[in-house]
Amino acid sequence: MDRKGILLVVSGFSGAGKGTLMKELVSRYDNYALSISATTRSPREGEVDGREYFFRTKEEFEQMIADEALIEHACYVGNYYGTPRAYVEEQLALGRDVILEIEIQGALQIKKRFPDTLLLFVSTPDAETLKNRLIGRGTESLDVVEKRLSRASEEAEGIENYDYFIINDDLDTCVTQVHQIIQGEHSRVSRNLELINTIKKDISKFQKG
Amino acid sequence: MDRKGILLVVSGFSGAGKGTLMKELVSRYDNYALSISATTRSPREGEVDGREYFFRTKEEFEQMIADEALIEHACYVGNYYGTPRAYVEEQLALGRDVILEIEIQGALQIKKRFPDTLLLFVSTPDAETLKNRLIGRGTESLDVVEKRLSRASEEAEGIENYDYFIINDDLDTCVTQVHQIIQGEHSRVSRNLELINTIKKDISKFQKG
Repeated sequence: MDRKGILLVVSGFSGAGKGTLMKELVSRYDNYALSISATTRSPREGEVDGREYFFRTKEEFEQMIADEALIEHACYVGNYYGTPRAYVEEQLALGRDVILEIEIQGALQIKKRFPDTLLLFVSTPDAETLKNRLIGRGTESLDVVEKRLSRASEEAEGIENYDYFIINDDLDTCVTQVHQIIQGEHSRVSRNLELINTIKKDISKFQKG
Repeated sequence: MDRKGILLVVSGFSGAGKGTLMKELVSRYDNYALSISATTRSPREGEVDGREYFFRTKEEFEQMIADEALIEHACYVGNYYGTPRAYVEEQLALGRDVILEIEIQGALQIKKRFPDTLLLFVSTPDAETLKNRLIGRGTESLDVVEKRLSRASEEAEGIENYDYFIINDDLDTCVTQVHQIIQGEHSRVSRNLELINTIKKDISKFQKG
């Protein structure tokens, strides 16, 4: 079967638990590579440069844009976020499925440039759960929480541009779902045209007449 | 998530092991319902009416066509094959994923009438394996084996009309793949529009302004 890597872009409401979901997926199964974004936002407590994000100054980030070292970048709640190109291309070439966690603007940029990309949207079961998770996290001021909620309602408008939609209610179920989505996609006819043509040619020797 | 059942049509070269694959899938996981076809061909040794097929006379079969009791039917190597409507509709309504094993003509008829249907094509790894499996089965005369091989080369031309393509080399791997394909498809945005709209409406209360 097709063993070219699949590029999966994961978006979703801030507070939907994308980060935990992706970390669990990568630790539970082989063959996934998690891309680390670059950002100009400040590290939250416990975040480490090169693990959660590459933390960069505005000047450094703009230099990366100029060098075309990012496959997408966007501005979100006043900060830059972007995806370093080298890692993604390396891992895909090795046949690994690469996962990017980025917001909707960046997701659509990537889908346009790489149409084979899968777009996955992660939601909480409902709006109340989302609000409670953001407040419960306690890492941001109420002002930022409100900005994120307002932003969530804008992002919700774009869900129809995604390929898959999952609800992160139970982490375990959700990790299995994402795994099934990606692995199932490897068997798409459109991802296996080379193999199909080889078999068609091979089998055509049985044609009568 | 969406729990409407998905209709999966499985086709593939005669000798690719579709029957074994489907039986194993249904026995290993819950939630799958295997549709039994009606046919006018003679039972092979060990086949039981109502288990492998509903064996019908040509007259009985033509009456089912007239009564619109079949969702598709086709003629293949001189015999009728068709899918009884009632069972499929019942099981889908119960939220079960329904699997039909039918050939390419019928598969395309169903996709046209029910666009949400998934079409899956099962192949052997190569042409030699296909020939050896058909000869090894020993249930048909060499003349029929040759007809099936010639037919296989015609069918191969239609693979691009399918959604998914898998190679049945190792049964266990293959069963897992089919399961992942169907379960992954349940999370398609296009299968969850109602749920997405509910969440969008719910979350829009956070919109500013």
